[in-house]
Amino acid sequence: MWFEDIPMTVANGNDTLTGNALPLLQEIVTLLERLEETGESGSIDLASLPFSSADRQWLQDALGEGAVKININAGGPTTIVETATPGVWWVVHCNERSAQVGEFIEVTLVPDMIPTHPDDVSSGVRRLEEKLTV
Amino acid sequence: MWFEDIPMTVANGNDTLTGNALPLLQEIVTLLERLEETGESGSIDLASLPFSSADRQWLQDALGEGAVKININAGGPTTIVETATPGVWWVVHCNERSAQVGEFIEVTLVPDMIPTHPDDVSSGVRRLEEKLTV
Repeated sequence: MWFEDIPMTVANGNDTLTGNALPLLQEIVTLLERLEETGESGSIDLASLPFSSADRQWLQDALGEGAVKININAGGPTTIVETATPGVWWVVHCNERSAQVGEFIEVTLVPDMIPTHPDDVSSGVRRLEEKLTV
Repeated sequence: MWFEDIPMTVANGNDTLTGNALPLLQEIVTLLERLEETGESGSIDLASLPFSSADRQWLQDALGEGAVKININAGGPTTIVETATPGVWWVVHCNERSAQVGEFIEVTLVPDMIPTHPDDVSSGVRRLEEKLTV
């Protein structure tokens, strides 16, 4: 159900497989093997190669659909959908008018945009402490 | 806007502040200070103390609303909302009939349910490799 929530540009006609989806899946496996062996994350920019709606559907079918969907409202909205392939996340960035401006496969244990930065924790603590002493 | 998406039980009448919200905020600050100093996470079970809808509203106003909302569909749905206080996440678990069964404040850099387990990465790699060799 989450894949349906990924915002995407409407495809033009003649939308068929380009032949790029299978090598893309192979690249994802390579990144997963690196994640497995070294813990190192990686990502693939789907805008960097010809990639049709049919390719997208094929790849989403191959990866399967996971249990987690993340919405982030920072400037334009970002949607991150976990696939059923652990460690593979589908990331779509939109602008403030909700038009898609970037689409990535992120291969990682935790998507890059999620962790709170420790420095931000410190400034939050100070703010709450001020609130408690007023 | 995310706080509105938190599923919650409808409050009964006479819903006023119980006096528990302020000590709860103090406990959150204590957990945040520990997170800041040691990196150790903590959580508070909101069902473990009398906590009214008015308390919830007061606490949500004090923490503020962050940019991230996470939906997880594993059994019943779980909603995790980032507050504007970095490191503080509001977590609600529901059962399969969408009734709330647990509500927690999680104080952590990454909510507990998000990271992919490294062992799961390995089994996913094997599955994709089989798919590629068929």
